Amino acid sequence: MIRRFCIIGVGLIGGSAALRARGFCGEIIGVDADPANLDRAEALGVVDRGRVDPEQGVEGADFVLIATPVGTIEPLFRRLRPVWRPECVYTDAGSTKGSVVDAARRVFGKVPSNFIPGHPIAGAERSGVEAADASLFEGKRVILTPLPDSAPDALARVGEFWTYLGAKVERMEAERHDEVLAATSHLPHVLAFTLARMLGRKDEQAEIFRYAAGGFRDFTRIASSDPRMWLDICRANREPLLELLAEYEAALREVAGLIRNDDAGRLYACFSEARSAREKFLQLTENNHA
Amino acid sequence: MIRRFCIIGVGLIGGSAALRARGFCGEIIGVDADPANLDRAEALGVVDRGRVDPEQGVEGADFVLIATPVGTIEPLFRRLRPVWRPECVYTDAGSTKGSVVDAARRVFGKVPSNFIPGHPIAGAERSGVEAADASLFEGKRVILTPLPDSAPDALARVGEFWTYLGAKVERMEAERHDEVLAATSHLPHVLAFTLARMLGRKDEQAEIFRYAAGGFRDFTRIASSDPRMWLDICRANREPLLELLAEYEAALREVAGLIRNDDAGRLYACFSEARSAREKFLQLTENNHA
Repeated sequence: MIRRFCIIGVGLIGGSAALRARGFCGEIIGVDADPANLDRAEALGVVDRGRVDPEQGVEGADFVLIATPVGTIEPLFRRLRPVWRPECVYTDAGSTKGSVVDAARRVFGKVPSNFIPGHPIAGAERSGVEAADASLFEGKRVILTPLPDSAPDALARVGEFWTYLGAKVERMEAERHDEVLAATSHLPHVLAFTLARMLGRKDEQAEIFRYAAGGFRDFTRIASSDPRMWLDICRANREPLLELLAEYEAALREVAGLIRNDDAGRLYACFSEARSAREKFLQLTENNHA
Repeated sequence: MIRRFCIIGVGLIGGSAALRARGFCGEIIGVDADPANLDRAEALGVVDRGRVDPEQGVEGADFVLIATPVGTIEPLFRRLRPVWRPECVYTDAGSTKGSVVDAARRVFGKVPSNFIPGHPIAGAERSGVEAADASLFEGKRVILTPLPDSAPDALARVGEFWTYLGAKVERMEAERHDEVLAATSHLPHVLAFTLARMLGRKDEQAEIFRYAAGGFRDFTRIASSDPRMWLDICRANREPLLELLAEYEAALREVAGLIRNDDAGRLYACFSEARSAREKFLQLTENNHA
């Protein structure tokens, strides 16, 4: 049970958390830099009260969820530092974790023991409070990346919070989180953005989009994601992402070479291996849902 | 109205065409190299009779649809040549069109005037007759690439056929078809295969797939496509595909460079441009469905 729940950043993630947490929160305070967004969140019944200033929003809260793009978290920590309270539990929903840990160290000297870094692996190409959905976290994984001196009771409360929201909670080192997510999320987003941009330019000349089908729609879905959020992610997780981009470029050159040399045997083996890999992913996902 | 409809290749495309054409075909003959597949197709009621030999299957047919992977079409033409009849209409559903036209020229000297090359832009990562679906072509585009001396009545009959199946029929030069599809279909498939293969290898070491979410599932859906079919497509449309792969590699290096140099302004512009391009594609698709 949370008495006063403060959500900083009332977008898809923050709004969805608020909708689902309604039943076990005395009061939900939304903090957002955009007053119009706060008005919408209040009108939609997502939050009880809105505040533009985080210092005011966290007043009296016993649980604070930071759900803003990762690039905003360090300046936010600077504003929260003077009003940081040991009796409150803090967590975040940032898509990268190393950068959040580093930001906390820069601002606080060390990561406060009552701040538990976290990442719900749930999102959508939609964004904004209007897209908030109480079932967004149902069956999804939330990765917490506590530090050796994280307070056990804070860690437990954050775990319970996400469990209440329907998610499955796991723990991982921040560094491993960032490597895994670079591969399964950040790299695919950059690939999709790059393709959509390149073909958008071609479409202006040749109207190719008229002839694109469902496969293209699915493949580029993540290119509809929020550019600001993804700018922050690419900057925050630069090194693992650059390594994977180099690896992907090499893999693509290999496949292009097989096509150029008409190496049917190896090309078939590549595509078969790819299909098997995806089947394995699907099996794992089905097991997750079971 | 078709008296005897012969479908060569009873997989997803051929089977779906058979299911939907049932109402206006006197008899449906399925040709497939795999007798077990023909048994399934008969048991499912997709075809009335199965034949392993195309020479026998086309006997007495007035409409023949070739729905086998594009790499098989030239040897098939060789077998059909001795039994080719001027009173029958022939078409195909191959994913590339220049290669089919070239194959016809090699086998027949010139493209027979009663063969109309075509491509229904409808597919799925599923394959096989079990995946056949009478509504597969509903609202989808079918591109016909007739030649200057194609018989007008054959062209009209093929157009009517796909219209009966619920599709929207367009005409295009074979060369333009192949360029457009290389961009909107063949390139995305190669990108998805390459990613699924690369991450499949990583997964063996690091279990990354457990942490992949819906975005990854959509992005890699097309990597579950039939490897044999895509091998054929890559070989048949090699030049346009290699050009686009080179272009994509350059675009990816550009984005990687922006990430490396932490060029936030340009990176944001890239992602925004990508999102706008996809929104434009979605608007076009919605208009298509209207």
